[in-house]
Amino acid sequence: MDFGPILIMLAALIVLARLGSAIFARFGVPGLIGEIVIGIVLANLVIGDWSFLGMLGIEMGDAPSQNYEILEVFAELGVIFLLFAVGLETKVKDLLSVGKAAMLVATMGVIIPFIAGFALIEVYEGNMHHALFLGAAMVATSVGITARVIKDMKLMDTKESKIIIGAAVIDDILGMVVLAIVVGMTASGEMSISNIALISIEAAVFVIAVLASAMWVVPRIYSYFEERNRKRFERTGESHSGVNKLILAIAVCLGFAWFADIIGLAAIIGAFLGGMLLAEYAWEWKVEEKIEPITTFFISFFFLNVGMQVDLGEMATGSAVLLAAVVILLAIATKYIGCYWGAMIDKTLTKGSRNIIGFGMVPRGEVGIIVASIGLASGAMSSELYAVVVMMAVATTIIGPPLFARAFRKKYPPEYKLTPDDMT
Amino acid sequence: MDFGPILIMLAALIVLARLGSAIFARFGVPGLIGEIVIGIVLANLVIGDWSFLGMLGIEMGDAPSQNYEILEVFAELGVIFLLFAVGLETKVKDLLSVGKAAMLVATMGVIIPFIAGFALIEVYEGNMHHALFLGAAMVATSVGITARVIKDMKLMDTKESKIIIGAAVIDDILGMVVLAIVVGMTASGEMSISNIALISIEAAVFVIAVLASAMWVVPRIYSYFEERNRKRFERTGESHSGVNKLILAIAVCLGFAWFADIIGLAAIIGAFLGGMLLAEYAWEWKVEEKIEPITTFFISFFFLNVGMQVDLGEMATGSAVLLAAVVILLAIATKYIGCYWGAMIDKTLTKGSRNIIGFGMVPRGEVGIIVASIGLASGAMSSELYAVVVMMAVATTIIGPPLFARAFRKKYPPEYKLTPDDMT
Repeated sequence: MDFGPILIMLAALIVLARLGSAIFARFGVPGLIGEIVIGIVLANLVIGDWSFLGMLGIEMGDAPSQNYEILEVFAELGVIFLLFAVGLETKVKDLLSVGKAAMLVATMGVIIPFIAGFALIEVYEGNMHHALFLGAAMVATSVGITARVIKDMKLMDTKESKIIIGAAVIDDILGMVVLAIVVGMTASGEMSISNIALISIEAAVFVIAVLASAMWVVPRIYSYFEERNRKRFERTGESHSGVNKLILAIAVCLGFAWFADIIGLAAIIGAFLGGMLLAEYAWEWKVEEKIEPITTFFISFFFLNVGMQVDLGEMATGSAVLLAAVVILLAIATKYIGCYWGAMIDKTLTKGSRNIIGFGMVPRGEVGIIVASIGLASGAMSSELYAVVVMMAVATTIIGPPLFARAFRKKYPPEYKLTPDDMT
Repeated sequence: MDFGPILIMLAALIVLARLGSAIFARFGVPGLIGEIVIGIVLANLVIGDWSFLGMLGIEMGDAPSQNYEILEVFAELGVIFLLFAVGLETKVKDLLSVGKAAMLVATMGVIIPFIAGFALIEVYEGNMHHALFLGAAMVATSVGITARVIKDMKLMDTKESKIIIGAAVIDDILGMVVLAIVVGMTASGEMSISNIALISIEAAVFVIAVLASAMWVVPRIYSYFEERNRKRFERTGESHSGVNKLILAIAVCLGFAWFADIIGLAAIIGAFLGGMLLAEYAWEWKVEEKIEPITTFFISFFFLNVGMQVDLGEMATGSAVLLAAVVILLAIATKYIGCYWGAMIDKTLTKGSRNIIGFGMVPRGEVGIIVASIGLASGAMSSELYAVVVMMAVATTIIGPPLFARAFRKKYPPEYKLTPDDMT
């Protein structure tokens, strides 16, 4: 195998991504948007036979080059490690404390966009399969993107962040259920109740099992080993435990991602839950600071790849642009309104907080694109509509974070010190 | 693309590698040998149609599965990041202080094994092409493996370590030159002087350019940015520099590895030199501690893959076993003797130190295997001889480190505190 082209591709992409990130950050826009924009530019800058991606040995499409396959694997690992890192900072008891609000925010944030997307295409095209898939693609919030903004702003501990992360996780799970329903309906012409029930039950059991393990099982295992190490230390004076915490964390992250994948959920949901499982010990074990460089290495490829999905050529027709514009507006408005309403259940949340939550849930990113690509592959979606969905996912990802960051900064200015009231 | 099989392969391999490492470490053997042994076991445990690797979706050979390609990329990145990390700990002035000794150790450690390997096959088979390739495969020390042992023992700062690392780098470069000569001779029937001259000059210019840059150019660039940041801080009170040090380090690592690859050297040599370029600032920038988790993530795949190259089936014939045993003994003895002699030029080195240096240079690992696979691909080597070379590379890697570690511990027991005399 010839590694030269892989090495230069990785080096060039990581530098370009960082450049994009630094330029956008200078104008106060979240850096990840710079990385997505670099991805769009890379994929669309074609001069005659020459293209940026071609120069880097990247061929996308039906017969992807080896370099692009590597890039895809790195992108996937990037978002998996990012969600794992977010999980590491999400303690179960914190999540449960915002459980009711998060649940309603998620549910409203799923129902309203789905209905709006479905109705739009049903009226515009009259094609129910297309309508179902567009509705499904509008459902799931991209936890990855919002989480990165929150992490960059160092506002992980606020109550709003916990509600958003909790709701985004729940709504990703609901999104998977909706996707399963839609796939079932378009494939068989009717929905398979048993399939819907199966995926819902699997998801619920998985989440509850992880929450319960994090609260009752993991602390016991931990105490057992602590006790054993303490005794050995008394006996031999040797304090080394033999278990490499970083390897343990990586194994949990990848293992849970894999498990979620095989039971039909998204791999990132598994990674997030795996992170939550270790959240109580992440700080003590310094797992977070060790996972961070790994995430930094991989994550840029994820955001670049999101941008690279955008084929500006597909958007050249007037009707496509108009449809995309309407879908983008609907996607932003319905998610914002649904989540803002959902957040009303918690009376302690101010208007400013509901604003933060509403905007925080706007980015769709990868999950919308995944839904669209499943639709395209199964023939239930046209390639024009696919391009619209990708534009919607990218646009909400670009438009959401600045609105979200502004709402967040309005309540918590840079010089603001968090009080315990802000956290619960 | 279906990521499930990739995720479970990565998770399973990283856990198995760690298990092997922990088991061997418990018996005082360097953990990496456990990882190599796990690789051998994985690749050779076949029961009927069932195999471990098959279960993990790994198909090696001429039509490798996607999972194996990913594994190979991770393995290559692992050894690249490892050598970069070693470079980060190797300051130019330290290397120059041992330059003369390292140069002679490397040269003697190249000449003697090459002559021995060449003579053995010339006498045994009378095939000059085979003889040339076996000689070349016996030349290059695996910096990666010795470096890991040194890092694990935390003896990076000793004079012996610096001589070994310096000599291993020089001898890898010499090894590339020998390989270029051998390829030229077997391809054209005579050696191409211009090709040999070209690769030698390229290597020398690259190394000298990096050493000079590390001493004179990088410090100036650094001071310039320091000054600019200081001025901006005075003006705006903002101390953030905008340059992410980890991304910078990764880009230098991958970029230099790529550059070495395209000019015909090994990628790992480039990564090592890239690390040296930043060595003066690695500590201040906390680059080392950030690169470490990335190395930890990737490196296990490298050692597993080294083990997976061993096909025990090829070794089933008596003559192959005998030949392998002779080659292994020669490889160990000639490298040890050559380097021990070479080290005599430095009169301050005791017999114990020369012992450390002699044993430290024994492991061949990846470079020997690379040489052998080039020979096999070009038809200049038989598959039996290839298996012998792989066995030699693995055996020296397994036998070398314990001898090396014992020699090291004899001079520097665990409780020993290094004095300035030990370092220069």
